[in-house]
Amino acid sequence: MYKVTKKKVHGLLHPEIVGDERWDKIINVFIIVLIILNVVAVILETVKSINNRYEEFFHYFDWISVIIFTIEYILRVWSSNHEEKYKHSVWGRLKYMFSAGALIDLIAIAPSYMHSIIGIDLRVLRMMRLMRLFRLFRLTAYMKSAQMITNVFKKRANELALTFILAALLIIIASCIIYFTEHLYPTEKTSLFTSIPATIWWAIVTLTTTGYGDMIPLTDLGKFMSGIIMLTGVAFFALPAGIITAGFLEEFRINRIKKTHKCPNCGEDLNLENNHHHDENGK
Amino acid sequence: MYKVTKKKVHGLLHPEIVGDERWDKIINVFIIVLIILNVVAVILETVKSINNRYEEFFHYFDWISVIIFTIEYILRVWSSNHEEKYKHSVWGRLKYMFSAGALIDLIAIAPSYMHSIIGIDLRVLRMMRLMRLFRLFRLTAYMKSAQMITNVFKKRANELALTFILAALLIIIASCIIYFTEHLYPTEKTSLFTSIPATIWWAIVTLTTTGYGDMIPLTDLGKFMSGIIMLTGVAFFALPAGIITAGFLEEFRINRIKKTHKCPNCGEDLNLENNHHHDENGK
Amino acid sequence: MYKVTKKKVHGLLHPEIVGDERWDKIINVFIIVLIILNVVAVILETVKSINNRYEEFFHYFDWISVIIFTIEYILRVWSSNHEEKYKHSVWGRLKYMFSAGALIDLIAIAPSYMHSIIGIDLRVLRMMRLMRLFRLFRLTAYMKSAQMITNVFKKRANELALTFILAALLIIIASCIIYFTEHLYPTEKTSLFTSIPATIWWAIVTLTTTGYGDMIPLTDLGKFMSGIIMLTGVAFFALPAGIITAGFLEEFRINRIKKTHKCPNCGEDLNLENNHHHDENGK
Amino acid sequence: MYKVTKKKVHGLLHPEIVGDERWDKIINVFIIVLIILNVVAVILETVKSINNRYEEFFHYFDWISVIIFTIEYILRVWSSNHEEKYKHSVWGRLKYMFSAGALIDLIAIAPSYMHSIIGIDLRVLRMMRLMRLFRLFRLTAYMKSAQMITNVFKKRANELALTFILAALLIIIASCIIYFTEHLYPTEKTSLFTSIPATIWWAIVTLTTTGYGDMIPLTDLGKFMSGIIMLTGVAFFALPAGIITAGFLEEFRINRIKKTHKCPNCGEDLNLENNHHHDENGK
Repeated sequence: MYKVTKKKVHGLLHPEIVGDERWDKIINVFIIVLIILNVVAVILETVKSINNRYEEFFHYFDWISVIIFTIEYILRVWSSNHEEKYKHSVWGRLKYMFSAGALIDLIAIAPSYMHSIIGIDLRVLRMMRLMRLFRLFRLTAYMKSAQMITNVFKKRANELALTFILAALLIIIASCIIYFTEHLYPTEKTSLFTSIPATIWWAIVTLTTTGYGDMIPLTDLGKFMSGIIMLTGVAFFALPAGIITAGFLEEFRINRIKKTHKCPNCGEDLNLENNHHHDENGK
Repeated sequence: MYKVTKKKVHGLLHPEIVGDERWDKIINVFIIVLIILNVVAVILETVKSINNRYEEFFHYFDWISVIIFTIEYILRVWSSNHEEKYKHSVWGRLKYMFSAGALIDLIAIAPSYMHSIIGIDLRVLRMMRLMRLFRLFRLTAYMKSAQMITNVFKKRANELALTFILAALLIIIASCIIYFTEHLYPTEKTSLFTSIPATIWWAIVTLTTTGYGDMIPLTDLGKFMSGIIMLTGVAFFALPAGIITAGFLEEFRINRIKKTHKCPNCGEDLNLENNHHHDENGK
Repeated sequence: MYKVTKKKVHGLLHPEIVGDERWDKIINVFIIVLIILNVVAVILETVKSINNRYEEFFHYFDWISVIIFTIEYILRVWSSNHEEKYKHSVWGRLKYMFSAGALIDLIAIAPSYMHSIIGIDLRVLRMMRLMRLFRLFRLTAYMKSAQMITNVFKKRANELALTFILAALLIIIASCIIYFTEHLYPTEKTSLFTSIPATIWWAIVTLTTTGYGDMIPLTDLGKFMSGIIMLTGVAFFALPAGIITAGFLEEFRINRIKKTHKCPNCGEDLNLENNHHHDENGK
Repeated sequence: MYKVTKKKVHGLLHPEIVGDERWDKIINVFIIVLIILNVVAVILETVKSINNRYEEFFHYFDWISVIIFTIEYILRVWSSNHEEKYKHSVWGRLKYMFSAGALIDLIAIAPSYMHSIIGIDLRVLRMMRLMRLFRLFRLTAYMKSAQMITNVFKKRANELALTFILAALLIIIASCIIYFTEHLYPTEKTSLFTSIPATIWWAIVTLTTTGYGDMIPLTDLGKFMSGIIMLTGVAFFALPAGIITAGFLEEFRINRIKKTHKCPNCGEDLNLENNHHHDENGK
């Protein structure tokens, strides 16, 4: 009886594992909507005019949410040892409590208690309450396409990391060039390129083509070098797009092969790109 | 006789269904040009100097257009029950009147009548008259490539939707980070990052690399975090490009297979990616 | 003798047709360098400080260039009837004179004569002299990759044209939305969104992610709608990149097939994508 | 004994050649960290507040680094003739000293000596010390993906170069158009488009979609032409992304073929794209 309840509770809170019965869905949609409303509340609380008017409402809404999330958290921990990897009734549950998902859940509720007990700063509290946002990432587990995107990033992690390193080198080199052109040749206006770190800000804003316009090279040489840097940047910042696109095509191709490539002779699955997995004499 | 006329009228107004006889084309090109001229008129009416000079002309042009569009609308509704799905002489026509296309047509002409009868606000009238623009989307029905682009967006709808959700998460997370860095560490200038919604505007402007420059982080920590956010954004906003490109390649591949893959043995169409649809012994 | 000279002259001026003998190259490189120097001269002439100092030099340099270009033009026209399609000694040459290439050559030299004869405005003259720039496009004829890029644009012309039309629709719709949000709800600052044409400028600057920051929506609703427009724009403006990338891949694939696909049975070229151009029983 | 030492030293300094023993790694990581710290130091030295406080520290840190780099350089030169191509004990070493890698190493340490001997300007010294940054490119040699990126850029060098030339033409043409529209029709505000070189700066900032907003066309015609230029730019600047993406896909394909294509009949490697490297009768 106790075990059945635990299994049921576990199933209700992890619908992605067990299935999609009616109650699973209702509870899940309720939790998701509550998380979204919490995030919206924290965002709106920062608007003074709204906060002044609805302060009390926000206060009560937060406490109701925290209580619901606390109950959910306790039930999750309690039912966690239903799973094989958290089997032990004490250590298993502790192990679960230190899993990434459970920690995020804890961080989402802990600050509210800490606020009323220890008296944590309200602004820090708000920031921490936004951690609830991260719980939304769980949603992506339901989406098939999420796995594809994750796959692309995982498989191309090396190339993307290298692109990041090259981008860092390009940014530093660009910053140094512009720092020295703007620094060595003083203009009538006071240059904003006072140091290399300040110029790195300019380089990132420029090379990502954001271009705020708060810092603009004023010397002719600086403009000339910036022009070259910008054009180089266009070719260079096409790299991540290229890597990611190529990655997607690979994923699509793999999915396609899985779906369509069955040998027309024997009906077996083909796990090679080769169209022939056996030849005519192979019967 | 009555039926033949109705069929002819229906054909004239739906050249994409019946064919492209001479009169179809003339009527269609005339309607399209009239729609474009109407849109141009509404756009130019908003320029004060032009409106002051040509106000009367715009007035008459609008009324002539409305009359032509009204006639077209009535003829469309009248001849609609020529089609199988709107067969019933009353309910079929009513059903047609509530189809998306017919509603847009109605919205395009109704405001002008409402203006002279109920006295609707002129500015609202102008906005509604721009609805005529949407009728231009009908044009895309003639273009083969439009279907390809629609296909790409449809087939990749899941991935694109997920990208949108992830973009929303990234924007909110970025906003919160910058809001707190800019808010907690006050600078001499009054910060524009007064609330998270205000910072979301900054995040969208920055992450789409638009970079107006109306809001710029001023603290060192804020600039540092913005730099990381921008670089992350470049990799992240390459996702839609990647998905769409991969989608196009799939479309091209499918078209190619349809065109070129006929079995060299028997001349039959191949509907698989497999180059062999039957083997040597399969005869 | 006369014919041989003409053939030789024709060859010298069209090295891409005849071959690459020594003199061809020298003359060609000389003409190209002269064109580039002319463009540089016209660009530098617009800088006041440079023009004041070197005005005389620019004047003489222009006349020497014009004389050389005139001689080249006359020789081109004279030797043009060496080619098959311009065979007739009078009509053939006239026909050549109205070809795109010859007209550009004429436009490049005519203004200088018109200036000294009719007294054409100097500023218009300068602009027309920049037409010499277009002669540089001839260079691309030598580059193999130029043909590939041209091919991509040609074959994908339909899709790219449609993208342009859709972009125009998106820009107009975005302009109307923001015009009405910024216009109907007046703010304390005077809005810059005075008319739809003015807002179209904002829409283009925003949707291409240029983001000058000269026009920024000030109302909350305007900012909200702009945010949605920007995010839509990112997905939408990924279309040309997607189409062009897919186009390149097609070109690469075609080149690859041309190179590598020879039938392993008979050594014949395969002009199909099919790996089999004849089956086992076809011997 | 001497030879063994030399071989060992050479191995320690070139772990990418010999292998990855324990000491190799330690020395290498130490050198890399020292280079990064040096770059960070040079960057931070340009921040006045930091430099004032830690000037002495930076001074000592620089000298310690220079001594270590000098020792490394001497050992590299000394052990260089262990390699086949630098075999000769004098000329081989000299040849090595003039290799790109060795020159960068020299440039990284020379300025510090020149400063204390000849009294080179401190600001020039700092700039030259940043050359140490280039030594980080050596790191990329260890990364497999670096080779892929290099391959893509090498194989597509022609297309990318052509894109650069076309970009230059587009920039010049755009500059001329906007220069003349902004120059011929004077507005109340003083135009910033004073010369074509100044307008080229605008064109680069605009076409790379950086859009600082320091120069904005003010005339209606100028804005109209800019709009067209921006939209053209979007399609055009999709070219590098397209070329690079297509290049990556080629690389992935080649890697895949290398890995998976073994003939299922005989187990031999297939070095063609053709799925058949021998036919049924070829046994």
